[in-house]
Amino acid sequence: MSSLLIQNVRIMDGEAADILIRDGVVSRIAPGIEAPDVPVEPGGGLIAIPGLVDAHTHLDKSLLGWPWYKNDVGGASLTAMIENERNMKKSLGLDPHVQSMRHALKTAALGTTLIRSHVDIDTDAGLRAMEGVMETAARLADVVEIETVAFPQSGLMIREGTAELMDRALAMGADLVGGLDPCGVDRDPKGHLDTVFGLADKHGKGIDIHLHERGELGMFSMDMILDRAAALGMHGLVTISHAFCLGMPDFQRVEAMLERLAALDVRIMTTAPTSSPAPLVKQLDAHGIRIGAGNDGIQDTWGPYGNGDMLERAKFVGLRNNLRMDAEVKRALDICTGGGAEAMARPRRALETGAPGDVVLVAGETVAEAVVTHAPRKLVVKGGRVTARDGATLVAAP
Amino acid sequence: MSSLLIQNVRIMDGEAADILIRDGVVSRIAPGIEAPDVPVEPGGGLIAIPGLVDAHTHLDKSLLGWPWYKNDVGGASLTAMIENERNMKKSLGLDPHVQSMRHALKTAALGTTLIRSHVDIDTDAGLRAMEGVMETAARLADVVEIETVAFPQSGLMIREGTAELMDRALAMGADLVGGLDPCGVDRDPKGHLDTVFGLADKHGKGIDIHLHERGELGMFSMDMILDRAAALGMHGLVTISHAFCLGMPDFQRVEAMLERLAALDVRIMTTAPTSSPAPLVKQLDAHGIRIGAGNDGIQDTWGPYGNGDMLERAKFVGLRNNLRMDAEVKRALDICTGGGAEAMARPRRALETGAPGDVVLVAGETVAEAVVTHAPRKLVVKGGRVTARDGATLVAAP
Repeated sequence: MSSLLIQNVRIMDGEAADILIRDGVVSRIAPGIEAPDVPVEPGGGLIAIPGLVDAHTHLDKSLLGWPWYKNDVGGASLTAMIENERNMKKSLGLDPHVQSMRHALKTAALGTTLIRSHVDIDTDAGLRAMEGVMETAARLADVVEIETVAFPQSGLMIREGTAELMDRALAMGADLVGGLDPCGVDRDPKGHLDTVFGLADKHGKGIDIHLHERGELGMFSMDMILDRAAALGMHGLVTISHAFCLGMPDFQRVEAMLERLAALDVRIMTTAPTSSPAPLVKQLDAHGIRIGAGNDGIQDTWGPYGNGDMLERAKFVGLRNNLRMDAEVKRALDICTGGGAEAMARPRRALETGAPGDVVLVAGETVAEAVVTHAPRKLVVKGGRVTARDGATLVAAP
Repeated sequence: MSSLLIQNVRIMDGEAADILIRDGVVSRIAPGIEAPDVPVEPGGGLIAIPGLVDAHTHLDKSLLGWPWYKNDVGGASLTAMIENERNMKKSLGLDPHVQSMRHALKTAALGTTLIRSHVDIDTDAGLRAMEGVMETAARLADVVEIETVAFPQSGLMIREGTAELMDRALAMGADLVGGLDPCGVDRDPKGHLDTVFGLADKHGKGIDIHLHERGELGMFSMDMILDRAAALGMHGLVTISHAFCLGMPDFQRVEAMLERLAALDVRIMTTAPTSSPAPLVKQLDAHGIRIGAGNDGIQDTWGPYGNGDMLERAKFVGLRNNLRMDAEVKRALDICTGGGAEAMARPRRALETGAPGDVVLVAGETVAEAVVTHAPRKLVVKGGRVTARDGATLVAAP
């Protein structure tokens, strides 16, 4: 952890001030700070925002650095996409460490200082992906903090041996237990969720479950998740990613579920998707439900989209939720910074004394403008250490 | 109209070839073309795509070039947004010619060579906006073709004198008659549509109606539009912009309406919105309905979003419609180029002999990559004349 004095920035487009980071933590924000023992970065009047947080991605999947992957599978069948990915990973001989380095550094160059990555665990590749991403996490510890979720992408009950691999992944240090569409993929919601919660209970770890199931099917799976979270007293330890079903057009039904989610302090991660129903920020905010956002996989066999930019993701959160007022756009950004970190049960990323010393300097007149134009990142600081300048990390990608 | 030989480009990421434009029209596409009488541009192996088409925007509204406009109105009430805009335009003293120059050149710098702009006609500003945009259209004729729609943004029946102003706007050269939410804004669908179609009939012009009304209300208004289009024999002359109601979750109801739209060759313009229902590309394609796309207003009192980039809009079309395959992403781009021009009843923008000589050179490995990364535009050619290099037009904005 380092110390740094960032001079003359506009704190979230407000008053000009300096930011003093000592031992990795914001220690003071004020104009004209004197700290002769600390290195100095001139801020040039740029806007300072907190380090960005990608609370849902897949570092082991991207094809960054490879020739363009021609997608002829499309998005019609989830099973076909899962099979295709597992086969392509094998036939291309993708190295999860190399791919996760490329992906994490691309995201870090754009100001992300904290990532939660789901990592595929399956009986074809075993623990290779988890080993590769954990190696990346260790090597980039000073650049971007990476949390891992052991994720049974190919199913848990339908592929024998997966639960044992998940168990080993957790024993070797995966941070959370993942899960996936208990009905849709495994066709065995009880088996799937008992296994997921059993692993979490055994290892004393939290859970982050992908739930793409829509409408009443998703509501059914969500209820089964919440039953187990309540039985195990897992308040604040369960995350549901995507949660498309919360976008169903039945206000009363959704409200009742939101009350239950809030009571168990379940966190919701969203990508603010445009082609599916989605949990809505204002509705969740009214219940005090913590929301994080993520870029999800980028440029992989699932689809060509995504560039690792969490400031652009804040724009997508704004567009998806019809957030037009400047204050609303700031809330979209908060979900991609402080709010996202809180949803991950990590210290809030914010420009406040005591917060992690993660700061991004962006061009632009106002924060709203920086979000809607996803303005150039001039400087990225992680824990008081400069990690990127002008959109390029100081550490080179393989 | 000019002539130009663009050497060594990849035609839509396919084979390397030269493009010869003579007198503004693509005359030949082949490797190693000899044309000693024609100026040459080296293409450097870049991808060539057709000129982009913004089929729905509002050139008179943008606040580009002004200090950041702090939005505290939001998106809750359409009436409040309309009132706020009319008042802000007056109090800021916006010059529609200057604003439309800025907006059109920003879009042109990013490769757009054809624009359809709705232009506000109301009893506060009279014909000022139309005069300003028509001045811009004349001045930029060599850079970007601009079509105008006389648009009663503040209502037609509820503000006496608006129909007369619309009539004058059409007499002075507006290309199409606009309309707006016949139920939602005017609360008089019969009055509104009789006036709109009456003006179109009188001036022998086409129609492009904004229809944000959702669900059954939108379907009702759409039926009333189609009744009049049929009665006046206006096949291929009516466009419905936005058409949110076609995204309602009632397949049979929507299919029946699509059949009716197809029979009258009505065209649909979409922005691929993320926070509202929307017409879906594959569903409309199945009926052969022509689709165009647009950026809508950018950075105006309605909201902070938008940057004038129709290649990014193609990405939004792809995301909104869950288009993941390379061939599908190319369809998204087609809607923002050739398909968009066809929807405007203009010559198809395409890299084919006989098409307008509008060509954009973009970086990237494949067209899909260029779309999803909205890759840098290296060169823009309009009618055989170079209009922009490296994202900047040769004509400066005021």
